[in-house]
Amino acid sequence: MRQAGRYLPEYRAMRANVDFLTLCKTPDLAAEVALQPIERFGMDGCVIFSDILIPVEAMGAPVSFGDAGPKLDRPVRTLADVERLRVPDPVESMPFTLDALRLARTALADRAALVGFVGGPFTLASYLIEGGGSKTYANTKQLLYSEPASMHALLAKLAQTIAGFAAAQVEAGAQAIQVFDTWAGELSPEAYEEFAVPYQAEVIARAKRAGVPVILFVNGCAGKLHAMMRAGPDVLSIDWRVELAAVRKQVGDGVALQGNVDPCVLLATPDAVTSSARAAMISAGPLGHILNLGHGVMPATPLECAQAFVDAPKSP
Amino acid sequence: MRQAGRYLPEYRAMRANVDFLTLCKTPDLAAEVALQPIERFGMDGCVIFSDILIPVEAMGAPVSFGDAGPKLDRPVRTLADVERLRVPDPVESMPFTLDALRLARTALADRAALVGFVGGPFTLASYLIEGGGSKTYANTKQLLYSEPASMHALLAKLAQTIAGFAAAQVEAGAQAIQVFDTWAGELSPEAYEEFAVPYQAEVIARAKRAGVPVILFVNGCAGKLHAMMRAGPDVLSIDWRVELAAVRKQVGDGVALQGNVDPCVLLATPDAVTSSARAAMISAGPLGHILNLGHGVMPATPLECAQAFVDAPKSP
Repeated sequence: MRQAGRYLPEYRAMRANVDFLTLCKTPDLAAEVALQPIERFGMDGCVIFSDILIPVEAMGAPVSFGDAGPKLDRPVRTLADVERLRVPDPVESMPFTLDALRLARTALADRAALVGFVGGPFTLASYLIEGGGSKTYANTKQLLYSEPASMHALLAKLAQTIAGFAAAQVEAGAQAIQVFDTWAGELSPEAYEEFAVPYQAEVIARAKRAGVPVILFVNGCAGKLHAMMRAGPDVLSIDWRVELAAVRKQVGDGVALQGNVDPCVLLATPDAVTSSARAAMISAGPLGHILNLGHGVMPATPLECAQAFVDAPKSP
Repeated sequence: MRQAGRYLPEYRAMRANVDFLTLCKTPDLAAEVALQPIERFGMDGCVIFSDILIPVEAMGAPVSFGDAGPKLDRPVRTLADVERLRVPDPVESMPFTLDALRLARTALADRAALVGFVGGPFTLASYLIEGGGSKTYANTKQLLYSEPASMHALLAKLAQTIAGFAAAQVEAGAQAIQVFDTWAGELSPEAYEEFAVPYQAEVIARAKRAGVPVILFVNGCAGKLHAMMRAGPDVLSIDWRVELAAVRKQVGDGVALQGNVDPCVLLATPDAVTSSARAAMISAGPLGHILNLGHGVMPATPLECAQAFVDAPKSP
C-alpha cells in the first residue's frame, strides 16, 4: 500500500513546493519521498513513489491531478479511441520511475525491500473510460457489456504496456511488484473472469519471469479469491472487509496473504491500532503473512497511530 | 431493490411537479409511484416508495435531498448529539408511509406482493455521523473505534426506531420487509459482528414477530455471509460482486437468496440483460431464489432493458 502521503509533515513540506506529477517525475525527489516513511517509522518494505496512471499518460492520454482526484481530458469511449493509444517503451517514456527505483535501492541498502508497482489493466481501463474516478463505473461497464471486443482491445494494449513497465521496474531494482487492480472488485465474477483475470495474468507472468514475487491487490476481493489465484500471484493483498482466516480457508496454502487492517482504524487511537494489527496477525495464522493495511493510509492519520501499526509485530 | 425512479418517464413526469420528500410524504402519490413499475413491467413484487432516511428525520435530524444525495445539517458526532435524538412513534411521526402501504395494497389486489423496507441501523448511523453519503466512512469509523459506547448508544436508538417502523409497516399491509444495511459491508468483519449484527437482529426479529419474511441486504456482502445469517433473515439479498453459487455453498440450505445481476448490465442491451438474468438463475440453483438486481436500478437504464430483465424468468 502507498506509504508516503499527506499524513506525513515531511511529505506536505515537499508538496508545498512541488506538484504531484512533478514529484512523480523527478527521480531524486520521488526516491526521497519513498524513503520518508522508512526513515520515520522503520517499515521493512519500501514502496516507490509514483502513480498507477503514469503509464496511461505514456500511452498518449494526458492526466491531471487535482484535489478531486485524477482527470483525463480525452476519455476512451470507442474502438477508434483505443486504436489511438500507443504501447510505449518504458525506458524511453517512463525513465523517471526507473531512475527513482535505482536511487531508492541505493539509499535503502538492506534496510528494507524495495517494492515497485503498477495498476491493473481493468483499473487503468476504468480511468481511461470514465475520464477519472467513478462511483458506479457505468461507462466502463456499458462498454464492456455492449462492445466487449473494444474492451478487450483496450485491455490488451494496457496489459502489454503494464507488463513491460513492471519488468523494467524489476530491472531497475524493484525486489517485488504489486499489481493494484483496485477497481476490478466492482465487476461481477463472470465479467472479472473474462476482463480482469487474463490481463492480470499477463502482467504477473512477466514480472515473475523478471525474477521477483508479485502481489495482487483487488479492493473488495472477498468474492473474487479463487479468480485472483488463477492470475498466478505469489501474494494476495486483502482489503479489510473480509477475515484473513476465512481467506486462508478458501485459497489453501499455496499463496502468502497481505493485509488487512481497515485504514480508518488509524484515525482512532494507538491502542485501537495495536489491537487491530494483532487481530490481523492472529487471523492470518501460521503461514506467510505480510502485515499491512487493507488500503492506502488516510491523509488524516495521526503519526502516533502509524507508528503503533509499524511497531505492533515487533512488540511482544 | 428500489423499482420506481428516474429511468421511468412516468416517474420523471411526477417529479417535474413534486419534490422527492413531498412525494415520500404524500400517500396517494407514493402509492401511485410504487405501482408504476408494476403497471409497466409486471414484476411480482412491489416495493413501496419511500426513503431509508425517513425515520432519521422523525428522530429529530432534518434531512434534505439534493442532486448530490441526502444532506443532514446537524451531523451526530458526540454522545450529547445522540442523546438529543428521540425514538419516535411510527404511527404518529411517519403515518404517510403507512397510509401509502394501505393504498398500494388495495390497488395491487393480488397482482404482486407488497414489500416494505427500512434502512439498517449501521447504515442510518453512517448518514447521521457523516451528514450525508461518504466514500470512506471516516467519521463513522473514527467514532466507532475511539468511542464505541457512543456508537452503541446511537445504534440502540436507531434499532428501536427502525424495528417499530418495520412492525408498523407490516400492520399497514407490507407482506415482506427488506432491511437495507447497505453500507455495513464497509466494516471489517470484527466491527460488523459488534456494530451491525445485534442491531440488524433486533429489527429482523421484530418484523418476523409481526408475521412476515425479512430480506437482508448488505452491499459488498461477500465477506459477511455467515455474520448476515446470524442476524436471522429469511432471505439474503446479494450484491453482484459474488457468485450466487458460491454464496449458496457458504450459507447452506436454510435461507433464500435474492439477486444479483449488476445494475450496469441494464445500461447495455436487452440481450446482455437476458443472458445475465439467466446466468443468475442458473447460479442460484434449485433452492429458493428471488431474481433481482444486485443494487438499485440506474437512472440511465433504457426501458427495454428493464423489460428484458422482468421477462427473463418467464420466457423459456
